[in-house]
Formats: sequence, structure tokens, C-alpha cells
Amino acid sequence: MSILAVGSIAFDCIATPAGRVENALGGSATYFSLAASYFTDVRVVAVVGEDFSAEQENILKKRKIDTRGIEHAKGKTFRWGGQYLENLNEAKTDFTELNVFEKFQPRIPKEYRDSKFLFLGNIHPTLQAAVRREMDGVRLTGGDTMNYWIQGFRQDLHETLKLVNVLLINDGEAKMLAGESNLPRAANKVLAMGPQALVIKHGEYGATIFFREGAFGIGSHPFRAPALPIDEVKDPTGAGDSFAGGFMGYIASQEELNREVLKRALFYGGVMGSFAVERFGTERLQALTREEIEARFQIFRELTHLA
Amino acid sequence: MSILAVGSIAFDCIATPAGRVENALGGSATYFSLAASYFTDVRVVAVVGEDFSAEQENILKKRKIDTRGIEHAKGKTFRWGGQYLENLNEAKTDFTELNVFEKFQPRIPKEYRDSKFLFLGNIHPTLQAAVRREMDGVRLTGGDTMNYWIQGFRQDLHETLKLVNVLLINDGEAKMLAGESNLPRAANKVLAMGPQALVIKHGEYGATIFFREGAFGIGSHPFRAPALPIDEVKDPTGAGDSFAGGFMGYIASQEELNREVLKRALFYGGVMGSFAVERFGTERLQALTREEIEARFQIFRELTHLA
Repeated sequence: MSILAVGSIAFDCIATPAGRVENALGGSATYFSLAASYFTDVRVVAVVGEDFSAEQENILKKRKIDTRGIEHAKGKTFRWGGQYLENLNEAKTDFTELNVFEKFQPRIPKEYRDSKFLFLGNIHPTLQAAVRREMDGVRLTGGDTMNYWIQGFRQDLHETLKLVNVLLINDGEAKMLAGESNLPRAANKVLAMGPQALVIKHGEYGATIFFREGAFGIGSHPFRAPALPIDEVKDPTGAGDSFAGGFMGYIASQEELNREVLKRALFYGGVMGSFAVERFGTERLQALTREEIEARFQIFRELTHLA
Repeated sequence: MSILAVGSIAFDCIATPAGRVENALGGSATYFSLAASYFTDVRVVAVVGEDFSAEQENILKKRKIDTRGIEHAKGKTFRWGGQYLENLNEAKTDFTELNVFEKFQPRIPKEYRDSKFLFLGNIHPTLQAAVRREMDGVRLTGGDTMNYWIQGFRQDLHETLKLVNVLLINDGEAKMLAGESNLPRAANKVLAMGPQALVIKHGEYGATIFFREGAFGIGSHPFRAPALPIDEVKDPTGAGDSFAGGFMGYIASQEELNREVLKRALFYGGVMGSFAVERFGTERLQALTREEIEARFQIFRELTHLA
């Protein structure tokens, strides 16, 4: 079933110990859509500037992503520059030029209204909530957020969290949002804010999904998926959005919506995140095959499953 | 089959956000032996002072641990005091009184010579090597070490690593030992130093076992076991040694020595570590049942295994 992704499209300038790249197509909606496109139909709502070329749009179109919801505004596309030092877990931002993204007001095309799955990328929580309220018929909404919104827009974020079924954040964001340093306790506090399930991403250690008691199944046992031990991470940019794309894309491809599906989705999230970081920008996500994805899923399984 | 543990016995003074305890029986040999005792016969070589009482020895004897190798020396038993703040991953040492442990020279009783498994707790690498050389007939040797030996006694440690089949260390130790910040690359460098397998403990994120190409089976794929998401860690002291005890104890209880056994052992390591931190000191490890252990093993499995 179709999934609608709302988020950013950006030009990224990235430097890592493995090299550098200038003005590569990036942004949360880009990584998410490319990753999800291997599982289901994807529609995008985002904004770009006059410097966004047909060639760049073709990167999405080649993956059969519906780009009719990309608004072309006057001005320049969002640009971000950052570098990763030896510790690839954290980016040091060199510059952020919001440009047309600053006044981004997501507009959902009529043709997108029947989308059954919705992903709210990391934008202002009030915009996230507005999009969610417009989309009556969705079966499941996934959402992302970050420290900036947790610290400065907590009340808005709380409103949005009531509308999100699955929140995907990292360890630090979960602890900050809950005001709690113990991770399982933090997870329970976040679940009490609204979401039925919470995915906490642990970077190279994988991810855990916590369920609200009774949500999507019986009990409240968490589930953990690994990340792939990777010899050389070329570029960690977009790993989280690619994870979300694999996770949500797999869910949207399934008839059922239960814990087993969400658990497998957590594995596919890790799989797509592991592909994303193997090359710079979205390069690896542009030309995968379903066979490569399934082969890596098997590696993830062998990495964690006893005979 | 019997396992011989060589390490420290200590009196610990521990403060954590959950409370405090004074002069609790601790030390690497204590935690390791108690954890391993649920799987196989355990023999201990360690040193204590005149302040070590029959009551304290009984904690080990009740678990049928052979204590004939505990040397009673003149002076006081090793004492350690430390505290854990909000971040329970790291202890702040208040005091270390080595006492009789300072001149510890492990002596292996004749009755211990037929031990088929050996665990070298965190002591001077030269002492570890000497013990290993005395034990001709062992099938598998596990070893621990720490930053102190990696930084100050690297040459001695390198000699010891040639004699150890499975090294168990944490992320920071692996990176320091290898001089390499990428974990899989660090693992490969450590494996090139001697061990056939390397267990890297990630604290609350579990542990990964890396195999040297062809060791214990085919290929070189790593395997990852989880840690239990725990709402309240009462006292992290001894978690690593309890992990090692579960890991080595399970291996010693099996006829075969192959990758599947080592993988299951990694789970049992996590299981015993998870019990250790639930109460202060060794309290939880003193009175477990095999049923409780198997039930928790199932929880670990459900935490990570797809249907």
C-alpha cells in the first residue's frame, strides 16, 4: 500500500575520513523515499528551490517515487554541510542554509489523500500534526523528531506525539524527551505520551522497539534488531532516515499489522541503514535489488539467531 | 567438565543511585565462579587475607565451588570502593587497597590439574601466562584484561594473548588494544594477536563474538547477543565477570566445542550478567535456579528472534 513521506530535500556537503562529496542530493524525505521504494509505492511532499534540476528529480523518479508533491518554490534549495571525524556517530555541522525550507508548508496533493501509511520526517512538530490531521484514512503514522524540537517546542511536540503511532528516535533523543537516563524507563515515559510503539535507534548497536501494553499484540516485551558490523562506514548521513524508510516501507508492504510484522520491519530498517552508509550520499540506495536486500536480511538473521 | 577460575576475591564498598553496600564479597573470581557454578564444576585459585571468614567462603561452597585453591595469606583481603552515578556504565573508584592481592602468585593445586577449561581473570598478564603454561590439558582458555594492562604492560599482554583462545573485553578495551576506532576492524586486529575468538561486551547493548577465519567452524561471521533492557540496575559491579562465568560455564557444560555452542554461550553470558546487576554484590547470583536461568534465556531469545 502507498506510503506518503513528508520531510526535507537538501543538497549536502559532507566530509568523512573516507572522502568528501559536494551538493549531493540528501534530506530526510530523499533518504526515506529511496529506502522505502524497494518495498512499496512512495509519494513525497517536500519543497525545493529553483536550483533543483530535473536530473536530481530523476533520482527519485527512477525508483518510481511519485514526486508530484514536491513544491518548487522561488529561491534556493535547503543546503547542509557537515563533517564526521573519527567517531562517525556524530556530525559536526559546518553550515545550515534553510532557504526555501524555512517557510515550508506541506501541501498534500489530492492524489495522495488515499495513502494508507504516513511518515512525518523531522520537521516542525506543528507541521507534522497538521499533515497528520489532513490524512484521515491512514492506517499507521510513523514520525521522527530531534533534540532541537524536544528542547524548544516541547508543547507542540507533545500534541504531535498523540497523533503518531510509531515514533523513531535515537537513545539521546529518547532520554531527553523523557527526562530519564535509564533507557527502558525512558521508553515507557515516551509511550505514555501517545505512540503505541517506540523505535529507539542505537547506531552501531542496532535498534529496539518498545510496545505499549497490548499495542499490536499481547504483552509489552521489547524486541531488538542488530546493526551490521561494518568495516568501513563511508558516510553515516541519512542512516536514520534510511532506517525509517526500510522500517515503514516493509510495514506498508504487508497485509497484516502486528508485532511480528513490526519486528521484521525493524530488521529491514537496519538492512537499509547498513546499505546507506556504505557509499556517499544516496548512491547505494539508488541502485539496489530486492535480492541484495533479502541477502542482507539473511545476514542480519544469522548475526542474531541461534540454530 | 571442570573449569578453573583464576582471579581476585575482594571486599567491595559500592554506592549506586539505588543504595549502598559495605564489604560485600566481590572480585572477578567470585562473580565468575558463582555464575559458572550453575552450569558446571568450578575450581578457584585466588588469595584472601586473615579477615576472610568461613562464612564468606561458604557463599562459594554452597554453590559447590571447590575452594581448595584459595590461598590464605597474612594481611588483609583486597578491598575496593567505588560509586556509580546516573550513568551506570562507569564506576568512579573511591579507593583500591590491593593488600594480599599485591603479591598474588597463583598456585594451582594438584587436584585442579585435570581441569579442561580455564578462565584467566583480570590479573597481571604475566601471571595469566604462567598459569596457562602450567595447565597442559585444557581444551579452551578464556581471558579477561583491562585498560591498565593494555596501556602499561602491552608486551606482556601480547605474550598472553597467544595463549588465550577466547578473549573477553569491552568496546573501549578492544579499541585501545587494537589502536583502532572502528569496532570490526579493531576485532580483526585483536584476533591477529592470538585468540581464535573475541567477545566484545557492549554493556546495555549486549555483546558480539568475532571469530578468526575458520576457528570453531566455517567462515568468519560475527554473532551478536542482546542484553536485557532493565528498568532498574541496582549495582553493575561484577556484570562483566558474571557474563564471563555464564559464557565459559555453558561452554564447559557441553560435549562439543563449535560455533553454535559459543553463540549460545554468548546468550548465557548475557543472562548471567543480567541477573548480577539486579541486586547488590553477588546476592542474586547466590540463589538462582536453573529454571530461572532457562526462563531468562527464553526472554533473551524472544527479544531477538523472529518467528
